[in-house]
Amino acid sequence: MNYIQSNQNKTIKEIKALHLKKNRDAEGLYFVEGIRFVNDAIDNEQDIIKVIISDKLESLNGGKELINRVNSVCNECFLVNEKLFKEISDTQTPQGILAVLKKKENNLDEIIKQGNSIVILDRLQDPGNVGTIIRTSDAAGISAVILTKGCVDLFSPKVLRSTMGSVFHLPIFENMKIDGSIELLKQSNYKIIASHLKGKNNYYNEDLTGKIAIIVGNEANGISDETAQLSDSLVKIPMPGRAESLNASIAASIMIYEIVRQKLK
Amino acid sequence: MNYIQSNQNKTIKEIKALHLKKNRDAEGLYFVEGIRFVNDAIDNEQDIIKVIISDKLESLNGGKELINRVNSVCNECFLVNEKLFKEISDTQTPQGILAVLKKKENNLDEIIKQGNSIVILDRLQDPGNVGTIIRTSDAAGISAVILTKGCVDLFSPKVLRSTMGSVFHLPIFENMKIDGSIELLKQSNYKIIASHLKGKNNYYNEDLTGKIAIIVGNEANGISDETAQLSDSLVKIPMPGRAESLNASIAASIMIYEIVRQKLK
Repeated sequence: MNYIQSNQNKTIKEIKALHLKKNRDAEGLYFVEGIRFVNDAIDNEQDIIKVIISDKLESLNGGKELINRVNSVCNECFLVNEKLFKEISDTQTPQGILAVLKKKENNLDEIIKQGNSIVILDRLQDPGNVGTIIRTSDAAGISAVILTKGCVDLFSPKVLRSTMGSVFHLPIFENMKIDGSIELLKQSNYKIIASHLKGKNNYYNEDLTGKIAIIVGNEANGISDETAQLSDSLVKIPMPGRAESLNASIAASIMIYEIVRQKLK
Repeated sequence: MNYIQSNQNKTIKEIKALHLKKNRDAEGLYFVEGIRFVNDAIDNEQDIIKVIISDKLESLNGGKELINRVNSVCNECFLVNEKLFKEISDTQTPQGILAVLKKKENNLDEIIKQGNSIVILDRLQDPGNVGTIIRTSDAAGISAVILTKGCVDLFSPKVLRSTMGSVFHLPIFENMKIDGSIELLKQSNYKIIASHLKGKNNYYNEDLTGKIAIIVGNEANGISDETAQLSDSLVKIPMPGRAESLNASIAASIMIYEIVRQKLK
């Protein structure tokens, strides 16, 4: 393991650059942090490019075992002191391990053909919402998640943390065009469903047993009029109480689990 | 309107004290912030004790109208400069209005008798989860939410913000004992349901059309063994995919909306 002392070191600078989306996009790289997340990356056979470890890690529960694991899967491991680690970390109290990963590439055409359920996030802004919907989609066995242009970046640390490791479990496509995605899905006979104020059917009265794509709209504005027109069916989530709206990740998850209910029951 | 200049002023000190739960408990008071939240408080006829306004508010959209409104419902309105307002505010970029409210007291016995659906949060720790579940419960027309001892404080600013105003819409009880609450509900013939790893039935195969109480367990540990034993039925949320768990507010909301589906369909 190499020891890095200076924050002017090239590797340190490279990792700092990955805090910005433009650099993650240009390099096709991102990073994850923490004992659990790095273990998840190894368990799920992610392509680990580099690992940075602080001298604190060894003292933590599971730290030593993880150091051995990363050394066996990655040739580029670096040790830094805690102060320098804090400079590259995105968290307030880092555990002292950060792994740089290569973004995975998936074939959307193939997944659409083989799959039966897709969740499309249309310009979602809140990192917690995007991460949580990916986690719910993973639990529900959704075939893939599509993020349109204008969504918060999938590989931002906050989104990644909210996925709780689900980012490694199912194919996720980013920077997609909404109209192109819908067309692709229609060609493979998916029914396109979106929740909308003008929806007639309650979501649970819609047949979701076939090939289904659910569109989740932007937190403030929902889906656009164009997207509503491209949808096969607009549904509503009834609100017999007094709140006027649901959190976007809640609304999405309620619909996603209605797919599970109808397919499994 | 009185003008306060010093952070040594008694009113300023009182409001700062309300940032701590022990003082909120002792005084039976809490505070909300922002144009929308204070408007909601007035719309929902909350007992507004004091209002603090910064000189910034007037310039904001809806600011002037709100100043007129608060003056008509509250005799104790104070003006402060923006710097002093930031000292009492819980937000990074305050809009310049903060209202001190009296906690509402509700009669649990009566609500249990008249209601038909209760959500019990058992030692939930995350403010966003608690607030979001209250919001979903409100949308779903749940009769009341019960927070057990050991839950994050309902009146902490983060929980309040996550409720998006729903805190004013339905009765919420705090610091309750879980066993006592369950007993009270059983006396009124509620069926007590909890999601649990040992659950046999999937939640949607459980009859939720009668009087129902759903227990949502702590994020890390779920419900206790004692609580599981007191429940009439343990159910599971199936996870045909690869994630091992759902976010607590997602799991709660999926079950809450199954009540809506079964009661409304």
